[in-house]
Amino acid sequence: MSARNIKLTISYDGTDFYGWQIQPEGRTVQGEILSSLRQMHKHDVRLYAAGRTDSGVHAEGQVANFLTDIDSIDSNRFHIAMNSFLPPDVRVLDSAAVPDDFHSRYSAKVRVYRYYFTVDEIVHPRVARYCARLTHHPSIGRLNELCHPLIGSHDFSTFTVPREQSESKVRHVHNAAFFPLGRLLVFEISANAFLWRMVRSVVGTLTELDKQGRSPVEVERRLLARDHKAAGPTAAASGLFLHRVEYPWEAMR
Amino acid sequence: MSARNIKLTISYDGTDFYGWQIQPEGRTVQGEILSSLRQMHKHDVRLYAAGRTDSGVHAEGQVANFLTDIDSIDSNRFHIAMNSFLPPDVRVLDSAAVPDDFHSRYSAKVRVYRYYFTVDEIVHPRVARYCARLTHHPSIGRLNELCHPLIGSHDFSTFTVPREQSESKVRHVHNAAFFPLGRLLVFEISANAFLWRMVRSVVGTLTELDKQGRSPVEVERRLLARDHKAAGPTAAASGLFLHRVEYPWEAMR
Repeated sequence: MSARNIKLTISYDGTDFYGWQIQPEGRTVQGEILSSLRQMHKHDVRLYAAGRTDSGVHAEGQVANFLTDIDSIDSNRFHIAMNSFLPPDVRVLDSAAVPDDFHSRYSAKVRVYRYYFTVDEIVHPRVARYCARLTHHPSIGRLNELCHPLIGSHDFSTFTVPREQSESKVRHVHNAAFFPLGRLLVFEISANAFLWRMVRSVVGTLTELDKQGRSPVEVERRLLARDHKAAGPTAAASGLFLHRVEYPWEAMR
Repeated sequence: MSARNIKLTISYDGTDFYGWQIQPEGRTVQGEILSSLRQMHKHDVRLYAAGRTDSGVHAEGQVANFLTDIDSIDSNRFHIAMNSFLPPDVRVLDSAAVPDDFHSRYSAKVRVYRYYFTVDEIVHPRVARYCARLTHHPSIGRLNELCHPLIGSHDFSTFTVPREQSESKVRHVHNAAFFPLGRLLVFEISANAFLWRMVRSVVGTLTELDKQGRSPVEVERRLLARDHKAAGPTAAASGLFLHRVEYPWEAMR
């Protein structure tokens, strides 16, 4: 059997990680997964991911892929073997064989992020790792109006940081909306791709403008400024999850 | 104003603590709470708790009390001030003034513990800190039958460890039952008091006997042995929560 390209769906609690990307120092999700693959392969393996989540950011549906020369494990059982080498704060939910030219990052068509808020005055320890606290009582109706100017293709320079190196700051936002989920308030945003810190900057700005009772015109003004000084605060990492990554049907088989 | 006796209801994620009780080395829940009280009082305070939970065990409704000489904080707002000094994995949910002779431990009438299981093959990182995995598909009907011999007053020597120093090993179990909660299976047990490791030993034994398809007669046999060798495995700390502590009405006012 020649090398197979294996696609993984990964969930992690980012609290105790210095983000996805492997570093010389500090615990990273990529580092843990490469270590599990090294133990199985007895040699180093290259691993590509759809999104390089920051320190403290979680994932419910990160996607990564690697080439394997192991013949003895079914493509759809790789994740089970990997989990036996991984710590409990990283789980591979699924594995599947994909075409040779499938690339987690370059083949991805849509990334979906979620940001979870609580409005409870006292945040239970069980929830605190996975959300941020809103200090005002939000208007879901107004928040959803504030989302509208962001939808479509725009230069999102306002909502990123100097560290972002992409030449073009234009991204296409397919949808952005707030909705209640149990006792939590969720912000979900989908785009072809995101700039560094973009979701946390967008959601921090939107909730601040909601608190100030501002209108969508103000969101548009901030967006058109194309300057990070026009953004509100950057929301905490704890509330952010890489929720899902979507691929065109043709990339998968 | 003379010293007030303040009752606290406390929730914590026990994962990163060496249990409730303060120790010379290592992070403890009591240590964190005493530290918050010291910062408010500018002197040491004594703190009594209903249950001294073990390393890794959580609480949804631990109760503790202390005497305060601070005049400037309302009894029912103490918890808000305390939370500003506490780490996010400990939250005081409520505070209230109680009579001078109220004692969290000695006045308690009923303790309720919960143990959370998952039967999912892959345990999501968000859930893994707060449950244990069952490796067989349980029968809730049989598990509840297996609980019956435990209800009532019994010598629970089988279900404790040599470290337990109580002279009498007799405790009165009011109720013990399994029920589903969302995707989780919950074991809830209430008693006047518990022996060291008792809940984890009971639930580890019950689930093992369910896996083996045994009948309630076997639970009775184990109980009557009054020897820890007759117990099954001790379930992991991660699944256990001190759920609630009940006090007689007269103790509270």
